[in-house]
Amino acid sequence: MSKQAKAVVLLSGGLDSATVLAMAREQGFACYALSFRYGQRHAVELQAAERVARALGAVEHRVAELDLRVFGGSALTSEMAVPKHEAVEEIGGGIPVTYVPARNTIFLSFALAYAEVLGAFDVFLGVNALDYSGYPDCRPEYIRAFEEMARLATKAGVEQEQRLRIHAPLIEMTKAQIIRRGLELGVDYGLTSSCYDPGEGGEACGHCDSCLLRAKGFAELGERDPVRG
Amino acid sequence: MSKQAKAVVLLSGGLDSATVLAMAREQGFACYALSFRYGQRHAVELQAAERVARALGAVEHRVAELDLRVFGGSALTSEMAVPKHEAVEEIGGGIPVTYVPARNTIFLSFALAYAEVLGAFDVFLGVNALDYSGYPDCRPEYIRAFEEMARLATKAGVEQEQRLRIHAPLIEMTKAQIIRRGLELGVDYGLTSSCYDPGEGGEACGHCDSCLLRAKGFAELGERDPVRG
Repeated sequence: MSKQAKAVVLLSGGLDSATVLAMAREQGFACYALSFRYGQRHAVELQAAERVARALGAVEHRVAELDLRVFGGSALTSEMAVPKHEAVEEIGGGIPVTYVPARNTIFLSFALAYAEVLGAFDVFLGVNALDYSGYPDCRPEYIRAFEEMARLATKAGVEQEQRLRIHAPLIEMTKAQIIRRGLELGVDYGLTSSCYDPGEGGEACGHCDSCLLRAKGFAELGERDPVRG
Repeated sequence: MSKQAKAVVLLSGGLDSATVLAMAREQGFACYALSFRYGQRHAVELQAAERVARALGAVEHRVAELDLRVFGGSALTSEMAVPKHEAVEEIGGGIPVTYVPARNTIFLSFALAYAEVLGAFDVFLGVNALDYSGYPDCRPEYIRAFEEMARLATKAGVEQEQRLRIHAPLIEMTKAQIIRRGLELGVDYGLTSSCYDPGEGGEACGHCDSCLLRAKGFAELGERDPVRG
């Protein structure tokens, strides 16, 4: 690209979004990373997001403040216990209690605002329909519906018929495939933090859904997870 | 209704949303009011929202914190000057600088989260397509697109095919019609605050777009605006 196009990349500090940032950069975008301080109990992920944004050359990294605790309703933002298991096979079906009501919709709405201010028309999001099939807002039909709504919501969509494109490049990938792609692109997974319920020092619990899926991904690939030592 | 249905009502503290709250109550809903502290310079409207919620019998009134200043881009959340005019005819066409990028999308996303936690399927919103034709996210096609996205985003939409309905009862009304309806329903407009750029004591400037449209509405109706004395 002669004039580098801008993209907003939603960056949680976890493994998936770090990989997405690397993929967006690989595609030639100037990346503007966006994270949220939303009352999550695993706020250590924001430090991880900052490390990842720097390491992967984001032009800018903004942290938006918003308080999703105002409504409760999820184990990630309330006193409800985060479910723990011994093995990945024990993870239940249906929508898990770690689901935060409307979280992706809220995050994408902020990305839409940021994109509109930047003059960007691309947003990258690390959702995954395989590992997180229980989350309604991780499915392709949801992403398409958000794009259509966004087209009608914005100055650019209305005045220039310029469509916002939401890229969800991981949506059909397994965790092992995601990690392989990230390693090819030079992602240092030692900088990331995936745990839903980390200890005081930020160490992963090893037994929440997110830790188990991550461990399974590294194991399938025969790679060592740098955060597990 | 035997078991009273719940509705989330977005309440800014202005004239329009106060009228909408009265209309939702009139329709028999148990109303859960939702306001935002989003970095607006006219934060006095939150005090107005609290007064209005109480006066119109909202079951609950929550104020969500979120910082839209993180992106800038609007006269309502930055140091940019709020445009002032002598008369309503001077208000320009196109999208005004008081437009906040993606604001309605962000607000509706929060309403969606609140509705999901409450088990509510109705959201009331005071947007108006006549006075605010310059705002892309005040048009009926935008509202319909948001509903479709919301259906795909939520547990209830996916599991029970229960659709969220977004009510925008003011969308085709003039300001005078809105005020007439509110007065019929007993709204005390003396409790509301519409100004984009109020003085230290909360007094309306009288010259921003919002003040001028409000004054015109009361004038057309031959009514006195209680906040203008």
